[in-house]
Amino acid sequence: MNPIKADSKTKSAQSERTADFENNLIHPDVDSGLPEQKRTAGKASAFDKWLMRTMLQKLGNPEIEVVLWDDSVITTSTSSPPIRVYIHQRSTLNKLLIDPSLYFGEGYSQGTIEVEGSLVSLNEAINRSMPSVNAKHFYRDGIRGCLRWLSRNTIDAARNNVHHHYDIGNDFYQLWLDQQLAYTCAYFSDPEMSLEAAQIAKMDHVCRKVGLKPGDTVVEAGCGWGALALHMAKNYGVRVKAFNVSHEQIIYARERANAERLSDRVEFVEDDWRNITGSFDSFVSVGMLEHVGLKNYEELGNVISRCQKPDGRGLIHSIGCNSPRVLDSWTTKRIFPGAHVPSLSEMMRIFEPQKFSILDVENLRLHYALTLEHWLQRYEQNIDEVRGMFDEKFIRTWRLYLSASIASFRTGSLQLFQVVFTNGRNNEVPWTRDKLYQSD
Amino acid sequence: MNPIKADSKTKSAQSERTADFENNLIHPDVDSGLPEQKRTAGKASAFDKWLMRTMLQKLGNPEIEVVLWDDSVITTSTSSPPIRVYIHQRSTLNKLLIDPSLYFGEGYSQGTIEVEGSLVSLNEAINRSMPSVNAKHFYRDGIRGCLRWLSRNTIDAARNNVHHHYDIGNDFYQLWLDQQLAYTCAYFSDPEMSLEAAQIAKMDHVCRKVGLKPGDTVVEAGCGWGALALHMAKNYGVRVKAFNVSHEQIIYARERANAERLSDRVEFVEDDWRNITGSFDSFVSVGMLEHVGLKNYEELGNVISRCQKPDGRGLIHSIGCNSPRVLDSWTTKRIFPGAHVPSLSEMMRIFEPQKFSILDVENLRLHYALTLEHWLQRYEQNIDEVRGMFDEKFIRTWRLYLSASIASFRTGSLQLFQVVFTNGRNNEVPWTRDKLYQSD
Repeated sequence: MNPIKADSKTKSAQSERTADFENNLIHPDVDSGLPEQKRTAGKASAFDKWLMRTMLQKLGNPEIEVVLWDDSVITTSTSSPPIRVYIHQRSTLNKLLIDPSLYFGEGYSQGTIEVEGSLVSLNEAINRSMPSVNAKHFYRDGIRGCLRWLSRNTIDAARNNVHHHYDIGNDFYQLWLDQQLAYTCAYFSDPEMSLEAAQIAKMDHVCRKVGLKPGDTVVEAGCGWGALALHMAKNYGVRVKAFNVSHEQIIYARERANAERLSDRVEFVEDDWRNITGSFDSFVSVGMLEHVGLKNYEELGNVISRCQKPDGRGLIHSIGCNSPRVLDSWTTKRIFPGAHVPSLSEMMRIFEPQKFSILDVENLRLHYALTLEHWLQRYEQNIDEVRGMFDEKFIRTWRLYLSASIASFRTGSLQLFQVVFTNGRNNEVPWTRDKLYQSD
Repeated sequence: MNPIKADSKTKSAQSERTADFENNLIHPDVDSGLPEQKRTAGKASAFDKWLMRTMLQKLGNPEIEVVLWDDSVITTSTSSPPIRVYIHQRSTLNKLLIDPSLYFGEGYSQGTIEVEGSLVSLNEAINRSMPSVNAKHFYRDGIRGCLRWLSRNTIDAARNNVHHHYDIGNDFYQLWLDQQLAYTCAYFSDPEMSLEAAQIAKMDHVCRKVGLKPGDTVVEAGCGWGALALHMAKNYGVRVKAFNVSHEQIIYARERANAERLSDRVEFVEDDWRNITGSFDSFVSVGMLEHVGLKNYEELGNVISRCQKPDGRGLIHSIGCNSPRVLDSWTTKRIFPGAHVPSLSEMMRIFEPQKFSILDVENLRLHYALTLEHWLQRYEQNIDEVRGMFDEKFIRTWRLYLSASIASFRTGSLQLFQVVFTNGRNNEVPWTRDKLYQSD
């Protein structure tokens, strides 16, 4: 397993941290709870084994070992100990052939697939082997049309999609996010800093990039539980109007604004970004673009153009990728319905029709891997409390989601872009970026 | 006229500088040398004036005043004194209707058009008024096909295009570039620094962005007179192989390498970027992409992928624009044949097919405006020496080119992008960008 690598100064500390993290996650699957009678009885046939070998070959022979229901082993691993994937049912094996991404996820959630070793490392091993084969025809193209349909993201569809993920209980998210419930990539100016500190550093990084001044007005599209909006108002003396279609998040954010006596400066609006009106110094959106849908990017550009003053700077912070792709089918089915992670050329569909000037793009991919490590660690630490809220299938689904996400950011399957932009004619822009890196 | 604006700390000093600069350029056209007998005799007709008014309207009523050959005035200016454009021939007026960009340039070069006031301000006034009308059908679309043809940029065409601009005499460029002959946007970490210092700061900025370490190998595509390659070898302990198809530039660069005893560490190759072979830690290209041609971007990505090691970082520094466009027809005819200035989505055609990870994009548009101000100022200061080398038409062509370029960068018609990228799986990337802003 390749640990995350950074510049030499921080590398060793980080490698240690990553190793600790991995060790804590070995054998999370000691007991998946699958009753013995649900396992396929009898021997795996030569044909079963041939199918399994063929699939591993199509995946580029990842460093894993597969154990079938009769304990027969098919391996493409050279590691010791290997990462072991147990497939307990013949029907699971058959489904994997149709759509490995979807049915690996489904099988893992249901416990008909179990993993011995780190779930993160397993996903990394597969991600790393994948690009060496033409994975396109194997499982991606077939679902592309379906995903396009899913990602229409009308206002109603967007609301349902957001509800699916974000309205499952604030108390659940409180178990594993930071204290302020920032559910987006943090900024670890020092990799050793706490998640809490890194989320604050991220908010400050965003505020500096758009150059907030006291008295400015900000509109935030997709405000989550309100952490950034409240941080801006409290620390930068600005007024914020923050939009979100998640009912539970808005209720929480309003309560926090009241408790912190900020409700005169921060307005939380339960509405879609398409309905933003008014004129603001800055448009800011952190972690919403993933839910907008590619077809709506040009409309998003129109909205920004309409609501951001000509001398204002805006920022969009989004998960992205290195070249256009669709998210895997399990993630779009079970985790983020309607989600799309854009490449930079796709993101430009927001900005280029309006002739916005792109001032700055920063890629924080490895910061998201580290953020997710913190989340997964807290998730596992509080697993008993999660178990009190949800069933085993939910627990395994979320474990896989967090683990696979770490792997995706580590292996470069996913990126995190922060894009700063302004009106194409605005000369009121910072002369250099040095002020982003000056301590207060 | 809007001076360049930066953050408050540097704004006032810069405004003063810009005002001085403008004052120095007022009335460069006291004597264009057009013989009186070449002026159209007789009165301008009502139809001539109607044509002129219509054209100004199509240009969005820029803040200018036009004086025809019989001293009749058509004005859309509210400024005092106005910027005056003298059109001395009816045939010039008629040609302007066909293609204002091309024939303004041609007329100005030949002296059948003269300008009273700042040529920079004139171009700014037109740039600022243009987007308020649909300029597309007026003069752009008609030449698009033609430009596409011109921008095929085969190896032979590229060589001819480069020869056209860069092989007109190193002694000419020495009159107005910095001492090291860096003919690309400088980086003014302080707007008050000298051009010489800003070019060195740019080279250091590039070297820091790609993270050069002693012993690294670098390939440079389009090395100009060799300033960056030599700077890297001298100050960062790396070995550089630098490519360029300009014969005069390569000869000059080799002489400098010999004189500075760097020829064992810097190899200057007179060849096209398509013929780069070998394996290097970094691929660097500063100010060449403009000559590559959009159709060749994917091939450029292939070349980079082939020659840059998986853990290396690369940088492309290029003039760009906010949305896809073609350069104006005069520039592509007289100044940079075959040139194309890409939008960021177009630049992604280099990176996305190879799944390069974009780490950092910085826009240095206003730095290029300032760089060009320095160049134009030196050009005018040394105009007598230029006059000893070239005829009046050349002098006026280059004055217009430099002035119009300043206006384009000031008004946002042009951008300057520095894009840092690496292999999509490389985790050996800087953790943050703070080291770019630490003093040595």
